Amino acid sequence: MFAHNKRLQYTVRVSETNPGLANLMLEQFGGPQGELAAACRYFTQAIGEDDPGRKDMLFDIATEELSHLEVIGTIVAMLNKGAKGRLSEAVEEEGELYRSITGAGNDSHLTQVLYGGGPPLVNSAGVPWTAAYIDTIGEPSADLRSNIAAEARAKIVYERLIALTEDPGVKEALGFLMTREIAHQKSFEKALYAMEPNFPPGKMPGDARFTNVYFNMSQGEPERRGPWNQGEQWQFVSEREKQMAVDGGSGEGSVKLSTAEAATVEQMALRTKSDPTADPLTGAELKKGKEGGSGTTADGTGNPTA
Amino acid sequence: MFAHNKRLQYTVRVSETNPGLANLMLEQFGGPQGELAAACRYFTQAIGEDDPGRKDMLFDIATEELSHLEVIGTIVAMLNKGAKGRLSEAVEEEGELYRSITGAGNDSHLTQVLYGGGPPLVNSAGVPWTAAYIDTIGEPSADLRSNIAAEARAKIVYERLIALTEDPGVKEALGFLMTREIAHQKSFEKALYAMEPNFPPGKMPGDARFTNVYFNMSQGEPERRGPWNQGEQWQFVSEREKQMAVDGGSGEGSVKLSTAEAATVEQMALRTKSDPTADPLTGAELKKGKEGGSGTTADGTGNPTA
Amino acid sequence: MFAHNKRLQYTVRVSETNPGLANLMLEQFGGPQGELAAACRYFTQAIGEDDPGRKDMLFDIATEELSHLEVIGTIVAMLNKGAKGRLSEAVEEEGELYRSITGAGNDSHLTQVLYGGGPPLVNSAGVPWTAAYIDTIGEPSADLRSNIAAEARAKIVYERLIALTEDPGVKEALGFLMTREIAHQKSFEKALYAMEPNFPPGKMPGDARFTNVYFNMSQGEPERRGPWNQGEQWQFVSEREKQMAVDGGSGEGSVKLSTAEAATVEQMALRTKSDPTADPLTGAELKKGKEGGSGTTADGTGNPTA
Amino acid sequence: MFAHNKRLQYTVRVSETNPGLANLMLEQFGGPQGELAAACRYFTQAIGEDDPGRKDMLFDIATEELSHLEVIGTIVAMLNKGAKGRLSEAVEEEGELYRSITGAGNDSHLTQVLYGGGPPLVNSAGVPWTAAYIDTIGEPSADLRSNIAAEARAKIVYERLIALTEDPGVKEALGFLMTREIAHQKSFEKALYAMEPNFPPGKMPGDARFTNVYFNMSQGEPERRGPWNQGEQWQFVSEREKQMAVDGGSGEGSVKLSTAEAATVEQMALRTKSDPTADPLTGAELKKGKEGGSGTTADGTGNPTA
Amino acid sequence: MFAHNKRLQYTVRVSETNPGLANLMLEQFGGPQGELAAACRYFTQAIGEDDPGRKDMLFDIATEELSHLEVIGTIVAMLNKGAKGRLSEAVEEEGELYRSITGAGNDSHLTQVLYGGGPPLVNSAGVPWTAAYIDTIGEPSADLRSNIAAEARAKIVYERLIALTEDPGVKEALGFLMTREIAHQKSFEKALYAMEPNFPPGKMPGDARFTNVYFNMSQGEPERRGPWNQGEQWQFVSEREKQMAVDGGSGEGSVKLSTAEAATVEQMALRTKSDPTADPLTGAELKKGKEGGSGTTADGTGNPTA
Amino acid sequence: MFAHNKRLQYTVRVSETNPGLANLMLEQFGGPQGELAAACRYFTQAIGEDDPGRKDMLFDIATEELSHLEVIGTIVAMLNKGAKGRLSEAVEEEGELYRSITGAGNDSHLTQVLYGGGPPLVNSAGVPWTAAYIDTIGEPSADLRSNIAAEARAKIVYERLIALTEDPGVKEALGFLMTREIAHQKSFEKALYAMEPNFPPGKMPGDARFTNVYFNMSQGEPERRGPWNQGEQWQFVSEREKQMAVDGGSGEGSVKLSTAEAATVEQMALRTKSDPTADPLTGAELKKGKEGGSGTTADGTGNPTA
Repeated sequence: MFAHNKRLQYTVRVSETNPGLANLMLEQFGGPQGELAAACRYFTQAIGEDDPGRKDMLFDIATEELSHLEVIGTIVAMLNKGAKGRLSEAVEEEGELYRSITGAGNDSHLTQVLYGGGPPLVNSAGVPWTAAYIDTIGEPSADLRSNIAAEARAKIVYERLIALTEDPGVKEALGFLMTREIAHQKSFEKALYAMEPNFPPGKMPGDARFTNVYFNMSQGEPERRGPWNQGEQWQFVSEREKQMAVDGGSGEGSVKLSTAEAATVEQMALRTKSDPTADPLTGAELKKGKEGGSGTTADGTGNPTA
Repeated sequence: MFAHNKRLQYTVRVSETNPGLANLMLEQFGGPQGELAAACRYFTQAIGEDDPGRKDMLFDIATEELSHLEVIGTIVAMLNKGAKGRLSEAVEEEGELYRSITGAGNDSHLTQVLYGGGPPLVNSAGVPWTAAYIDTIGEPSADLRSNIAAEARAKIVYERLIALTEDPGVKEALGFLMTREIAHQKSFEKALYAMEPNFPPGKMPGDARFTNVYFNMSQGEPERRGPWNQGEQWQFVSEREKQMAVDGGSGEGSVKLSTAEAATVEQMALRTKSDPTADPLTGAELKKGKEGGSGTTADGTGNPTA
Repeated sequence: MFAHNKRLQYTVRVSETNPGLANLMLEQFGGPQGELAAACRYFTQAIGEDDPGRKDMLFDIATEELSHLEVIGTIVAMLNKGAKGRLSEAVEEEGELYRSITGAGNDSHLTQVLYGGGPPLVNSAGVPWTAAYIDTIGEPSADLRSNIAAEARAKIVYERLIALTEDPGVKEALGFLMTREIAHQKSFEKALYAMEPNFPPGKMPGDARFTNVYFNMSQGEPERRGPWNQGEQWQFVSEREKQMAVDGGSGEGSVKLSTAEAATVEQMALRTKSDPTADPLTGAELKKGKEGGSGTTADGTGNPTA
Repeated sequence: MFAHNKRLQYTVRVSETNPGLANLMLEQFGGPQGELAAACRYFTQAIGEDDPGRKDMLFDIATEELSHLEVIGTIVAMLNKGAKGRLSEAVEEEGELYRSITGAGNDSHLTQVLYGGGPPLVNSAGVPWTAAYIDTIGEPSADLRSNIAAEARAKIVYERLIALTEDPGVKEALGFLMTREIAHQKSFEKALYAMEPNFPPGKMPGDARFTNVYFNMSQGEPERRGPWNQGEQWQFVSEREKQMAVDGGSGEGSVKLSTAEAATVEQMALRTKSDPTADPLTGAELKKGKEGGSGTTADGTGNPTA
Repeated sequence: MFAHNKRLQYTVRVSETNPGLANLMLEQFGGPQGELAAACRYFTQAIGEDDPGRKDMLFDIATEELSHLEVIGTIVAMLNKGAKGRLSEAVEEEGELYRSITGAGNDSHLTQVLYGGGPPLVNSAGVPWTAAYIDTIGEPSADLRSNIAAEARAKIVYERLIALTEDPGVKEALGFLMTREIAHQKSFEKALYAMEPNFPPGKMPGDARFTNVYFNMSQGEPERRGPWNQGEQWQFVSEREKQMAVDGGSGEGSVKLSTAEAATVEQMALRTKSDPTADPLTGAELKKGKEGGSGTTADGTGNPTA
Repeated sequence: MFAHNKRLQYTVRVSETNPGLANLMLEQFGGPQGELAAACRYFTQAIGEDDPGRKDMLFDIATEELSHLEVIGTIVAMLNKGAKGRLSEAVEEEGELYRSITGAGNDSHLTQVLYGGGPPLVNSAGVPWTAAYIDTIGEPSADLRSNIAAEARAKIVYERLIALTEDPGVKEALGFLMTREIAHQKSFEKALYAMEPNFPPGKMPGDARFTNVYFNMSQGEPERRGPWNQGEQWQFVSEREKQMAVDGGSGEGSVKLSTAEAATVEQMALRTKSDPTADPLTGAELKKGKEGGSGTTADGTGNPTA
């Protein structure tokens, strides 16, 4: 069960209102790398997890992320506090209000007009949060790696937001949130390596013929190599012929059809076949008038082809 | 520039058509962990990458994932080949056609009716692919971790699809695709650790007061610990008071308002204030008729409160 | 700040696993009327709210909804507990596994294959949760009405899920969750009517010429009336002429263009104008071959018109 | 059946073109509280409704909302009329065109470049309209409440748009549209209370143990009460222990597994178990080079831990 | 302005209820090729159109599509009429209700549980309608082609639905709707060719060096040709070298940076560079325990590499 | 199988960085008419196609579109190259960085903060690409028309982008991409007319009673006609009575219910019926206080009704 205390995990002291900056902050409120995504990711994993230690950790961190969601949401609310009243009460000259709404940059008009200055669950471009951001698949050797990556991404977005902010109170709170992503990444790293084996993830081994092969699919000078495709662990395959049909077969797709299926497929093929020998007049070549086709524009240059 | 060769990277030999199985395979064609997601993830990173070695690797793997997209799409097309003709040509008894469409399970009706048996870019539930699945943020120490995690997830989904399939040709092709995810994960691991430092990701260090703290946010018996929160690396904080307002402040949000802003905020507060002392009659308590309110159902039990 | 306790708000006792039923339950986990939507709705309102009483209430109910999300998620996890292991460990005959996955009805294959049996934030059809479900707009006289309606909808969906369930433990937990929606609706009703005035919502009065008019836009027998359009409060307008251009104007749209704009608009009109006197040969009338148009199929019956 | 008359329901007289303002207006064309949402909401309810009076009302209002969609769309078209031609005909200096496109604020570039100045079904941030905005669930005691709330929200968004506009013709048309939302809300209120009983919505009564309980989930000073949780109708529960496992049980989730299921679950648990006693070296602690681990950066401060 | 008449454009006579079939019909109610998409497409074009003839046609057809939406929605409502009451009133044995909900195939559970048997604006897989389906761009030579294509697609989906239906009343109504798509396609064809020139669409001519070139990008036996790439209109380019950098340049991307930009880019490159000569130990190679790396599983086969 | 060569299909030479312009270019990278949409459209058709000539063409053009995606993505990357480093390395004064991020117009802040200056798969408003843009339905007579229309749309969007650009290198590369859309449209036109018959699309003929009818649904002066509804091919129906129930029936929807169904439907109707004779007091008419209803504000003008 969740409980709530009215004190924030970190005090939010904003120097002055700034709806444009508020909107940038939404990236970590309702954006793909933001706190709602983090909380939902770990909360759903916690519920599905059977290992008692990991389950406990996932609930711990999910709950902290919810508390972070409250901190970043409060930053947005404080930055928007002035703007919220202005539009709601319409106390200004109209032209001034319009200019303030459209001049703050970065979709802050949306926050004001549609969401009334509250913190909506959208990213900084106004795109609503979607659970498509959550990549949990219910296998810990994969999910922990997803969590490590998610914390790394969130850390970077906070780093960018800090670089954009001059307000010392906002910088300080963002610094706390950024630091916690580092701590969480460390916890998830420990949890991953406390499972053994954890690579390859899951249960099934790979096919030994293909686990150490690197296909050089992009060619042309300069060709750069690195530990990801050189050294004794790797078999480097550049020849195009050896990249195709690597099973030694024809490289074609095939299926055995029943007689009835084959007949239907044939009927469809006949009905929809193209005539490779035709040179049909096309819609793009028509000119107005029933006589049609006398002067085409088929070369697309806009000039008659004569 | 991309070029295409008509041979597949791996030969696809399907034993018999099976539209229900075809639909499950869509998970790796147009699903969140599928090949389009993989190809788009690495391709967009490759274009944005400046390090020549990583750029080359990303183009290599993006191109291979496109080739995998073709393999899994061909599996879908072969499994659907019979069904495609049946509906298009409508050669069967009507009742039979309806039963075959709705009886294959798992949304295969959608594949047939809306997409005509072709391989659409949707997951196995028919949800259209979205770039919200792509978590690239343009910082290699984060993106490489995202790639490692993405390969781990894709490996698992292939493992599950293999477990569901009896067709040996399908199993074999899926086994190839699964194995390549392992190989790609290895490449991305090498690339990550060939950057130094890579942790914490990005440029900014964390705040030393909070990098090693673990907040025990979920409490109650049994309390489980592990390397993610115990040992000398960690400071374990269980006391609720020490989890709140960790900066030592009030735990409140605040902002300095200009005089004009304060006046507007006050005006809004007055207009919308609630009266805590009222006990208003509400819509839920009304009974039909202008006299209203004589016998309420406000306890929600459906019984008159009389 | 949020805190978590390992005990649920309501004990979940499931009699036996049932992945098909698990999937139906997702409606209230990641569906539009479900608990995540409720929690997010009230949480974002709480952060943006300035009235201290309403703010407190919104945090109370948001926190309880999060606790409900945990209860319904735990129901899903218990119902899926068997299926989760089966696919992950692949201990069964393959054909059996395929049949169990596709035979449970209602997209439970998705829950198994993509989400590994965990509770994903999708509805029962597998559509990911989206913040587009949240209709908060930052004005309490509107938001409280939205909350009342949301609780009413959630109550109904629980009612339907209860009707579908035979498991007494599931019924009991769902009954608790359903009842709480009733209690929350009552709280929101009280909060709405503790604001005065609350109708019309917001600040601006309506235009007295149109507030009491009812336009009878759908006509034909039988014409039914009711308190929504009859009685002294209403002016009922059936005559089509009086429904159009009700301002007494021309009913046209117009704008004053600058000279430069008028010239550009004219140029565009000329470039794209249609010739109403033409009877052009069209693509639909073409037959294959350069000579074209000799025998059209323009009537769409598939017969030559000749 | 629908019919259309070329006259608008309200005459639209725009003083001058203004693509920035056009974009804000899209909020009520293709936004969540806009006229398409309203029309679709009532139209789908009308088709599903069996009560003849309500069905008639729903068709009436749906049809009027379609007519409003035409009015607001015409406002957008008039405001964009100049901009539409400018880009299409490219008659200006290039730099000037770029500046005019990007300088109008609020995503009007999107309206121009992608939609060519026409009124697209997107909100003011360019997010495409989605039926996820529609909350109809087919039970009138819930749907009518949803309609009341939807009208309240739409009224507020119009109020905000009016505050932003200086053009008298736009203000006047918006005032008409806003007023009609008030009238519609009144109709839906009458229809709701013409059903009896209408609370609790639906058919099933609540569980009497929980209908009048208010859980004080968010605690800390100052604690505010109001009619939503005080008075004789309410039982106010603040003690955390009494908020958990309110059924008197253990507060745990449980399910009875078959023997086969239990074995599989056990197998999965073993395969994926974490070792709580380990202190594994993790990826975050690695340094470049095969020898690894000699100097870790695990504290995330970027300093060697020595 | 729109008006509504209670009579449908085509009488709907359904023989018996069938929720599974109802769900398939949703494809043309809230699906991508359905009637809402058609109505919205033409309605938004009509509002933006300046040519009086086309504008009139677009309003005519938009209005008819709305009337078709009503016909297909009524089919859904009739097919669901029995199921709607069953769940709402819960008059059956519970097990029976569950079986009826999950046994109808194709997501009809969603229609029942979430939407209460009403016709929701989703496709047959339950995916909510989105304006992303609408491809209007505000240029008639493109939009008319989009309309022609949209009518062709809608015609096909109706054809497939007819093939699935045994109910003569449903077949008849669907036949009407299908036929009207043919008629509309014909109108749009006429309107396209009544504009001259209409190819290439828009205003700008193509670059004569590339309008008649066909790049043979997919190679391998058998190589098939047809009128789309052979004949005097086409220049067929198969040589890979002539497909790349066709402008005669280097085929590279380049940009001139300012000195400050160059310095920043260099700094970023240094910070994130990969060391191509390293062979770093990676996370995938770690084994549990602080000593690490002694026995790796790096080949992904699950076997020690010893 | 796909292969990649490091040279672009067209050399990209950008004169100077410009993140605002970069964002506009995203329209053709991750927008609905952009190159990813084109590539996916033709690639999925190619896999599903059985006609060898069309299949080959579709793979050719899909591969070229992928190569175009690389060209337009490279333009974005070059235009963003300076901005990418600035935020990542945070080398500027903070205020300056904020101004540069929010001042570039058109959501370029999103590209910088969330995507780090890389080319993301979003449109110019930041909306993620979705497969809902793809309208492939697996019938060539429809899909080829969709392809023709898609090429026409893409051509127009390029035309608009060219008009906005002053950079000669960008103009030149865009000109190439625009021209190729013309060439592709020509190929698809040829392929469409090389199928015979291709109209009406698909297999089923229309109902001869309705293929040549034009319903004049939008009425009022001035009434404009054109080849789309006049001439011997058309039967023009203006009389409203002849537009309704065109089958000659009642224009009603009906279904035969079983006895059990009828009983349930009746029970639901009774439970939810509205009382047309009531004039109930409603929530909107309530005033605060238990006595209620004494002074209503029901006319919505904000004035007491006395």
